[in-house]
Amino acid sequence: MELEQMGKLAKEASRSLVKLSQPVKNACLLAVARNLVENTDAILTANRKDLENGKANNMPASLLDRLRLTEERIEGIAEGVRQVAALEDPIGEVLSMKERPNGLLIGKKKVPLGVIGIIYESRPNVTVDAFSLCFKTSNAVILRGGSDAIYSNIAFVDIIKQSLEENHVTPDAVFLLTDTSRETATKLMQLNDYIDVLIPRGGAGLIRSVVQNATVPVIETGTGNCHVFIDQTADVDMAVAIVKNAKLQRLGVCNACESLVIHKEIADQVIPKLLTMLKENGCEVRGDSVVKSFDDSVVTATEDDYATEYLDKIISAKVVENLDEAIAHINRNSTGHSETIVTKDYDNAQRFLNEVDSAAVYVNASTRFTDGFEFGFGAEIGISTQKLHARGPMGLEALTTTKYIIYGNGQVRP
Amino acid sequence: MELEQMGKLAKEASRSLVKLSQPVKNACLLAVARNLVENTDAILTANRKDLENGKANNMPASLLDRLRLTEERIEGIAEGVRQVAALEDPIGEVLSMKERPNGLLIGKKKVPLGVIGIIYESRPNVTVDAFSLCFKTSNAVILRGGSDAIYSNIAFVDIIKQSLEENHVTPDAVFLLTDTSRETATKLMQLNDYIDVLIPRGGAGLIRSVVQNATVPVIETGTGNCHVFIDQTADVDMAVAIVKNAKLQRLGVCNACESLVIHKEIADQVIPKLLTMLKENGCEVRGDSVVKSFDDSVVTATEDDYATEYLDKIISAKVVENLDEAIAHINRNSTGHSETIVTKDYDNAQRFLNEVDSAAVYVNASTRFTDGFEFGFGAEIGISTQKLHARGPMGLEALTTTKYIIYGNGQVRP
Repeated sequence: MELEQMGKLAKEASRSLVKLSQPVKNACLLAVARNLVENTDAILTANRKDLENGKANNMPASLLDRLRLTEERIEGIAEGVRQVAALEDPIGEVLSMKERPNGLLIGKKKVPLGVIGIIYESRPNVTVDAFSLCFKTSNAVILRGGSDAIYSNIAFVDIIKQSLEENHVTPDAVFLLTDTSRETATKLMQLNDYIDVLIPRGGAGLIRSVVQNATVPVIETGTGNCHVFIDQTADVDMAVAIVKNAKLQRLGVCNACESLVIHKEIADQVIPKLLTMLKENGCEVRGDSVVKSFDDSVVTATEDDYATEYLDKIISAKVVENLDEAIAHINRNSTGHSETIVTKDYDNAQRFLNEVDSAAVYVNASTRFTDGFEFGFGAEIGISTQKLHARGPMGLEALTTTKYIIYGNGQVRP
Repeated sequence: MELEQMGKLAKEASRSLVKLSQPVKNACLLAVARNLVENTDAILTANRKDLENGKANNMPASLLDRLRLTEERIEGIAEGVRQVAALEDPIGEVLSMKERPNGLLIGKKKVPLGVIGIIYESRPNVTVDAFSLCFKTSNAVILRGGSDAIYSNIAFVDIIKQSLEENHVTPDAVFLLTDTSRETATKLMQLNDYIDVLIPRGGAGLIRSVVQNATVPVIETGTGNCHVFIDQTADVDMAVAIVKNAKLQRLGVCNACESLVIHKEIADQVIPKLLTMLKENGCEVRGDSVVKSFDDSVVTATEDDYATEYLDKIISAKVVENLDEAIAHINRNSTGHSETIVTKDYDNAQRFLNEVDSAAVYVNASTRFTDGFEFGFGAEIGISTQKLHARGPMGLEALTTTKYIIYGNGQVRP
């Protein structure tokens, strides 16, 4: 099917999704979960084709693992859909309704965005996750996954469409672009007549390409060069524990710490303990001359190091004169994701929260909590590192917009 | 100054604006208002240069009038700044703060967007209006007005910068692009390192150019092809009064009605009265065959007519079979701005509010109320017709974003 036609049908579907009741939407989601489990064999067969292609193309083992589905993983995906069904539906809530002096009642109502485009890479579970969140919020969705996972994605979308039809809901609520060419992806990014919002999910290269090429509004989900700042008054053991958790608990995630900033007055106390802990865990440290003076194995950091998201057992470290220098360093180098201060000082805690310009700013906690589930949203479509519409972890709310509804009794403007 | 350097300084300024107290911000705004009035002569001298250039370039009288400043208009602009100073400051409000099971306190705080770019056309008052709204919300702003108003804009920005310096606030909070070339405008739209949001204000051509060329996130403020739907059960006199107000009270505005939709069962009663009223007011009607059957002077409407924002004494009109056809016609042709239903039927009113996909949907009132002041926001930076971040009239709130602030006491992720 032509992309233009797909857009048109998705837009028409979105007009009917807004009329669906909550029980019908949830019945569809539960049918998807049930049919995923029932069709496990068919999904695994499709997934095997993707895995064989991946091996033939010398795909690295870590990527093959992300691509691989198992019975257990399919059950996990289905359970995710059931959890979305169980969440409160934000659509239809009127946030406020006030009477104006002329008698008009003006309220702000939560409504779907319309048609959402999702561009993502090789994890096939995103296909089901993204559909379930978009559908729960009455949005139609056009999915463009990576070519690596095409057979798995086709199997998933067939099951979703069948589940919708079983519930007499239009299968045009979801489309998968099977043409995974770059040209078609660019066309999708410029389909302004039919797509309301585009959400890219993936690595820095994918995000950059979407930001550069899209004319459709984009919610940028981003990379995380997250900082831990150890203030002069920090509890040293707490600081070491937070750095250990933020850097090492999971390496390849956007809320992992990539860079340390240390107040010079606490350097002597904290740096030796930090270096010991990092060494024990096989983590390379790239630091300035002060950090290096504690241990020759520290690599000299370049300016680029301070701006790098390693996603690996590497961390950069810098010693600063004071809080001002720490905040300036963080605002210059961070990607606006998550930063934390470890401190006992009240004023410094408040200043850090106020002046660090990131989606999530912490006092005395690991940056690893920046996550829709940890924040209590029950779901997550991504983490926004830009400032329009949604910032930080995005749950169902981020997939809604508002409209003003106005009740009058004949008012005209004087 | 190079645009890149301007962006850098504006970003630095935005870091200090977030630290300003409300009394300091308001003192700056009141100083701007005072200095505008005190420097009336200098502003009028600069404005005369723009007017002379406009005349030399054969600018139409209506545009010359938009460009013209007078003592009274300058006082009006100053009064607008005073009103912004008097508004409640949204920055710093924590929208919710909840304790998670692990003891983390997570709150959502309203913060400035950062650096806002505003691209607009020949009205010089936008220079002061846009600055005052951005500054009130602790944002730095880079203004790119039209070349027609360049001398007036320079005079305004000089006065603003001087007022900031009088209050020991960085004058880099506002920049004016004096290079009004198309190339520089395009560079501004792609200054992703320094600009957080771009808001174009102007005609359809300007908006389209920004949407096509920008890589910076854009809030589209839009055109309005607004509809009045007269349902079967409408009060005929109310319907005629609403159409008169929505079409004719002011012609050149985006919330004016441009298209009528009439239920066939009320056509006989309402169309003759509508045509009489519109004729008396010199308004051309472009209708379908049913509308035309009531009066030969009705021009036959094309499909293009139904999609046109006339901003003039012209209105399109169509008779429909039922509410479904009305809603489909409106969703197909509207620009997503404002639409109203005139009806006595409860279910139809609710369906119209729910299913019409526009920023503001009304029952029994004129579309002319879609306006920040009429909605009670006390100010307006524009009316958004897109769905991300802000939809409908945008007051101070639209110039803010949020950040998550998290208070912990050593939490790490298990």
